[in-house]
Amino acid sequence: MMTIDERLVADSIELDLWALSQVRLRNDSNYPWLVLIPMRPDMREIHQLQPPDRVQLIDEISRAAWALERMVKPHKMNIAAMGNHVPQLHIHVIARFTTDPAWPHPVWGRIEPVPYSSDAIEDFKKRFAAAGRP
Amino acid sequence: MMTIDERLVADSIELDLWALSQVRLRNDSNYPWLVLIPMRPDMREIHQLQPPDRVQLIDEISRAAWALERMVKPHKMNIAAMGNHVPQLHIHVIARFTTDPAWPHPVWGRIEPVPYSSDAIEDFKKRFAAAGRP
Repeated sequence: MMTIDERLVADSIELDLWALSQVRLRNDSNYPWLVLIPMRPDMREIHQLQPPDRVQLIDEISRAAWALERMVKPHKMNIAAMGNHVPQLHIHVIARFTTDPAWPHPVWGRIEPVPYSSDAIEDFKKRFAAAGRP
Repeated sequence: MMTIDERLVADSIELDLWALSQVRLRNDSNYPWLVLIPMRPDMREIHQLQPPDRVQLIDEISRAAWALERMVKPHKMNIAAMGNHVPQLHIHVIARFTTDPAWPHPVWGRIEPVPYSSDAIEDFKKRFAAAGRP
């Protein structure tokens, strides 16, 4: 039975379901920030995925990054599978700008999240649906 | 002409050359920490790689992670392509322990690196050559 850790559910919004991963928007308007959650039970690490799932994952990471690239034209993409707090495998895809509040540091633990308004979430969903096509 | 950014060369030691990536040991004995540098010129982002190179990269990330898994049996692996300081594409593969000096935070910018002794580097190279076989 595949479940998603409640902490991942609480701090992000579902955007789409791809072949391997659920795609979520981290609810922090400081950074355009997607989270991919491979829908495989009991998975903690990329290297534990079966090889075909790994290939699908790097394809979906690239698709997510290209979507952000088209949407916001960032200075740099940060891609990371950390899981020190929430061990369930999830991959961060974060568009970074030299003007964002954490630059040049990693985003984690820097400043408090600023949730999106519901209008901003709807707007992001629409733009992502267009930019995230394969 | 493929060159490696001098900052990556200065803070790490070459271990091996795989089909896509040069594999380096970050010279910081606080954490077992590998850096993969895809040998493609002018590459900044995973999603800029051609699809066959992406597949090779996720295979090499997994191979590096399994090597560390066998060598040190960590609590969690941290995998990240950040590049906020050094934009040349490079992927960190870091074995984390709940007892390491940065846990549970990301390792960057926490404490000063502690370089390995030359004996410790030779020892790591030997163990990695055995643990990193495909």
